[in-house]
Amino acid sequence: MIQELLGIEYPIIQAPMAGVQDHKLAAAVSNAGGLGSLPCAMLDTESLERELTALTQATDKPYNVNFFCHTPPESNSAVEGRWRAALLPYYEELGVDLIDIQGGAKRAPYNAQMAQVLARFQPPVVSFHFGLPSPTLMAQIRDWGGKIIATATTVDEALWLEQHGVAAIIAQGVEAGGHRGFFLSHDITTQVGTFALVPQIVAAVSAPVIAAGGIADAQGVQAVMALGAAGAQIGTSYLLCDEANTSDVHRSALQSENAQHTALTNLFSGGPARGIVNRLMRELGPMSAEAPPFPLASDAMTPLRKAAEATGSGDFSPLWAGQNTSGCQRVTAGTMTRRLAGVESTT
Amino acid sequence: MIQELLGIEYPIIQAPMAGVQDHKLAAAVSNAGGLGSLPCAMLDTESLERELTALTQATDKPYNVNFFCHTPPESNSAVEGRWRAALLPYYEELGVDLIDIQGGAKRAPYNAQMAQVLARFQPPVVSFHFGLPSPTLMAQIRDWGGKIIATATTVDEALWLEQHGVAAIIAQGVEAGGHRGFFLSHDITTQVGTFALVPQIVAAVSAPVIAAGGIADAQGVQAVMALGAAGAQIGTSYLLCDEANTSDVHRSALQSENAQHTALTNLFSGGPARGIVNRLMRELGPMSAEAPPFPLASDAMTPLRKAAEATGSGDFSPLWAGQNTSGCQRVTAGTMTRRLAGVESTT
Repeated sequence: MIQELLGIEYPIIQAPMAGVQDHKLAAAVSNAGGLGSLPCAMLDTESLERELTALTQATDKPYNVNFFCHTPPESNSAVEGRWRAALLPYYEELGVDLIDIQGGAKRAPYNAQMAQVLARFQPPVVSFHFGLPSPTLMAQIRDWGGKIIATATTVDEALWLEQHGVAAIIAQGVEAGGHRGFFLSHDITTQVGTFALVPQIVAAVSAPVIAAGGIADAQGVQAVMALGAAGAQIGTSYLLCDEANTSDVHRSALQSENAQHTALTNLFSGGPARGIVNRLMRELGPMSAEAPPFPLASDAMTPLRKAAEATGSGDFSPLWAGQNTSGCQRVTAGTMTRRLAGVESTT
Repeated sequence: MIQELLGIEYPIIQAPMAGVQDHKLAAAVSNAGGLGSLPCAMLDTESLERELTALTQATDKPYNVNFFCHTPPESNSAVEGRWRAALLPYYEELGVDLIDIQGGAKRAPYNAQMAQVLARFQPPVVSFHFGLPSPTLMAQIRDWGGKIIATATTVDEALWLEQHGVAAIIAQGVEAGGHRGFFLSHDITTQVGTFALVPQIVAAVSAPVIAAGGIADAQGVQAVMALGAAGAQIGTSYLLCDEANTSDVHRSALQSENAQHTALTNLFSGGPARGIVNRLMRELGPMSAEAPPFPLASDAMTPLRKAAEATGSGDFSPLWAGQNTSGCQRVTAGTMTRRLAGVESTT
């Protein structure tokens, strides 16, 4: 049972969502009996320490910290030049200077420096996206009794994760918001719906499976349980919660008709991620061959995003959301967690 | 309750699958208590009459006949020329003459001639893909008490169908095998997973919703019921059944590792349809800008398919399948129907 494995009351895992939440959302979910998650992929070691301090002061329940395990690509000036050229008309329109392009919030893979910070806090659960870190880094987590869980988007990835000894597997269906966690193949046609993915992974592995993608409410949780999942990881439904840092443009997009239409896009980071279709995605196409590889595309996008958001526009913002935004509610994360668990009614 | 509406024992609808089945599969499913479906989109009126005669001799239970409602495009010789040029290397490799390209099995939209044949049989259920026929043609079906059901791939399409008075809506998630039934938009990013589609359509319409896409077994049926569906439409799991006409190359692909990897492809008909990735899809890319619009791409493909299949190769065949082939079993369609309904165990 996933509740025993992770030390939680309900089989509800709040999906880590870098950029829209910090320790406050994670603590609220953990305090309500789910597993709150702190997205750490964009934190430097100082911020990581600060967030973990705040999180552990705010809850004494189990929580999850999430990291990326991508292999950072080399920056290539020709690729970068083509990307800036593609964005140049927008720089001109918004009056942004190319000189404003700076290394912004970085996405570094899990490393020894982060591990050193973690070792002081010994988080009970550590989740990984885009594969797993080195055996040495994994052994360190197990040494303090930390449970390692990780994302699979195909049966092959689930088998690979099980061979590498994860405690549970997150089966990420293509409905999910944010970045696809794929790591064995980057062929987008390998990415399948939750309905196809969950039962096939459940049949292939013996580790417990946590379903993700398109789960919006208690009925969705019941449905993935029927497919053999041991738990459900939910992100999108938490985006309007009081404790989330979701921006104003993001909140209003989630509450508009536009939220019906999401797409996988590589424009904001270089890696395919699901968000609400906005002007940039419409004009360049959601997947662009000009975008540098993950995570390099984001540097040139950041000044455009900032300039547009300053005028109240989400035209250049990553409006991450899954295909099912019908569960979004302006409630506390505790209420949302209990509703997802089916122990508190929606009305 | 969908069982009362359609006069069936179990909420299991066998998906109509043109090209791989005839009345035999439909009769077997209906006789077992599900709703068998006869795919009629590729039948001329003579074949339609013959199939309906055989079907009504083989079962006295309710059954469904399925038609397409696309608007046939004009043939364009420039487009056709580019398509033949793209395929030319394969014609040379397989020793096929361009002269062998003939109008093959046509896909005509539902029309007055077909309606005339139907009127003699008065099928209890008529389902439509790619929208609906004219109000006159619909009224005729209702006059004999026929129930009209149709495919929606988005909430907008479901609302449109309900406004046009369908008795039930088939919510086709992107996991589904065969042709996408979309008709209001042809933007492929509007096509979402079953997990996202079903609850949102259930919330938007008052008509009963039949879920389709990725449902492979009784657990899958239970899961869509948890999402609010009234019934489940299943195609892929029936493909290996004794009564299906699935070709040898198709059957062996379904039972191979390759079945794990499907993609939406327009190479075989011009319209996006999900099938197992084969050599042609790998080499031209599953979606080609050179393919003429639906259904015109198929004429030039047919001789290649025939030549390849004659040597036991499925390299040029549409190997239609959904993203979840784990439910395929070499059993009778009656056994499959009872297993899907959860009244007969799988082992």
